[in-house]
Amino acid sequence: MTYNPGPEFLKNSIRMKPDLDGLGALGDLGWYSIQSILWAVNYELPKSVLAFPKSTFNEEGVIISCGSSLHWEDGKCATFHCSFLTYVTFDVTILGTKGSLRLHDLTLPFEESFGYGTFSESSEIDYGNIESGRWCPKPNEHVVETEFCQDVWMVKEFVDLVGKVKSLKMKPDKKWGVKSKKVQIVLDAVKESIQRGYQSVEIMMN
Amino acid sequence: MTYNPGPEFLKNSIRMKPDLDGLGALGDLGWYSIQSILWAVNYELPKSVLAFPKSTFNEEGVIISCGSSLHWEDGKCATFHCSFLTYVTFDVTILGTKGSLRLHDLTLPFEESFGYGTFSESSEIDYGNIESGRWCPKPNEHVVETEFCQDVWMVKEFVDLVGKVKSLKMKPDKKWGVKSKKVQIVLDAVKESIQRGYQSVEIMMN
Repeated sequence: MTYNPGPEFLKNSIRMKPDLDGLGALGDLGWYSIQSILWAVNYELPKSVLAFPKSTFNEEGVIISCGSSLHWEDGKCATFHCSFLTYVTFDVTILGTKGSLRLHDLTLPFEESFGYGTFSESSEIDYGNIESGRWCPKPNEHVVETEFCQDVWMVKEFVDLVGKVKSLKMKPDKKWGVKSKKVQIVLDAVKESIQRGYQSVEIMMN
Repeated sequence: MTYNPGPEFLKNSIRMKPDLDGLGALGDLGWYSIQSILWAVNYELPKSVLAFPKSTFNEEGVIISCGSSLHWEDGKCATFHCSFLTYVTFDVTILGTKGSLRLHDLTLPFEESFGYGTFSESSEIDYGNIESGRWCPKPNEHVVETEFCQDVWMVKEFVDLVGKVKSLKMKPDKKWGVKSKKVQIVLDAVKESIQRGYQSVEIMMN
């Protein structure tokens, strides 16, 4: 996940100040990258992370470009790259034994006013219906239509969560907190790997 | 670059035998991955490579799944993943400061009988012509038509090279040999990184 927010942002944004949101590109673009990876594995934490050598920092030592590989006990692995120095790219590619899934507008649909997102999916199931002249089935394009844009859904969800506590006297739902904390744990491990000179960092389960 | 060649291949192919083509998935899918990366940087060799932890090997120790990051002196970086255990995926994504390029059928066009390949390209130049409702320009889809399929072009090129030496008494053209050797140098460095327990390996220029 990459985009260039421009010189004004790179100079003055709180994301670029070590005493404010000091995680820089990792805390912004990296957060979404890690969250999409964890989403793909049902939020199972990796066993270890290893940042790619040679992150880029601004003059105050804040990350403006970095990447990492993530590794699970059972052999699954993932990589991400996040940068404020690169043309806008919000790609997710998920590869499985029997199929794959790709999307190009993670976090913010490029056509957000239309209230839908798109992704493509390929599967070995489609070999049965392959067109002549091709040796690999075409990906299936999917459109996900929603009644509201995602920002509205976020507010609706938040209102719903607050309503359950305030009106129905239910206990707070921990779902989002648990997910956010897992993203933060992985993000902190990537930061630690960078700080330790790109050594592997184990993630402790508790 | 990944595909699952099936149980017969995984058991009997020369790519799976340590005393034959012992480089396994790295020597097959990894070769194309590395070549496409070097193509994107005008065949400038990286300064170092660092294989991702936890490659997968068959019972005889041959690589069936691995990946690596590659690093250049000026800060450019690249990653690749190659595997015989994953659904067919021949993706290349190249990210630059001002644009990006994607293709999905590296090495063998999925519609090979039609003699063309496709790729998509995005560029900040297109912000001037953005459609309403979008905040990021749509990628431009390109079709590269060729008179012959790529296998025919390969033989024609080979015949041409031989003809220059045989009929025109020219010295052999070293272009392909130089490119192939550079791919082999990077590939050997990735193998060495794996064998050294996923330590960074410097590539010596000579």
